[in-house]
Amino acid sequence: MVDILHRIGVAKSSPDDVYAALTTIEGLSGWWARNTTGNTDVGGVIAFRFVPGGFDMKVIESVPGKKVLWEVVDGPAEWIGTHVSWDLSQAGDYTIVLFAHEGWAEPVEFMHHCSTKWATYLLSLKQLLESGVGSPDPDDQQISDWH
Amino acid sequence: MVDILHRIGVAKSSPDDVYAALTTIEGLSGWWARNTTGNTDVGGVIAFRFVPGGFDMKVIESVPGKKVLWEVVDGPAEWIGTHVSWDLSQAGDYTIVLFAHEGWAEPVEFMHHCSTKWATYLLSLKQLLESGVGSPDPDDQQISDWH
Repeated sequence: MVDILHRIGVAKSSPDDVYAALTTIEGLSGWWARNTTGNTDVGGVIAFRFVPGGFDMKVIESVPGKKVLWEVVDGPAEWIGTHVSWDLSQAGDYTIVLFAHEGWAEPVEFMHHCSTKWATYLLSLKQLLESGVGSPDPDDQQISDWH
Repeated sequence: MVDILHRIGVAKSSPDDVYAALTTIEGLSGWWARNTTGNTDVGGVIAFRFVPGGFDMKVIESVPGKKVLWEVVDGPAEWIGTHVSWDLSQAGDYTIVLFAHEGWAEPVEFMHHCSTKWATYLLSLKQLLESGVGSPDPDDQQISDWH
């Protein structure tokens, strides 16, 4: 099993602000995919739809200001059954986001792509919270021939 | 052992163009660290110096238009002995860059940070080749309290 890991620090925002951006349809559609629908409560399923495809995430855990955990229940074959976790903490003026997309079976080329793409979306989350405007799909940063 | 993996596609550039950006002081200082010195031949050591610190990389392998492999010989403790590899190939109008920073002992918080930071530098490499202007340190994108 291999994992994608990232860390960002969001200035001018509390862990509760970041948590809201991860647990409301308005927040999620402001940095990841504008076409986001579903139920963000524990046990609910959130549907994210992008230009190249989509993912359905089941909310496994949601602790205000601290942690969000999703399981991928539909999407590309390599994603199904993997987990996406968000751990939030405060460090001075920053909210630190530790991110993991865990449980990939193999370090395939698509995983390399998703690792870079996740970084751009995390920076979109940071930008949304710091400036009020993120870069969600379909206005996201193109990183390659794979979008 | 855990690895950082990334993939970008560089438009309007051949694998030889990307190779030049990875194997000349001028190229490297255009997207990673302006303060880059040393010898980019196989067996040589390249010194990269950043605002928060620096790395010395020994060039282990260098195959024009195909592959570059570095070993970290000095820098933060977690980096020493790890390897950074660049695999280049052509896909239509793009040069595909498969990147790996391999051999981290543990998935520490600093590794999460470096994973996201590598993504920003890879996008700086892409930007340098596509537009002529990259964002090397000290003009790089700030991602957190850790720079």
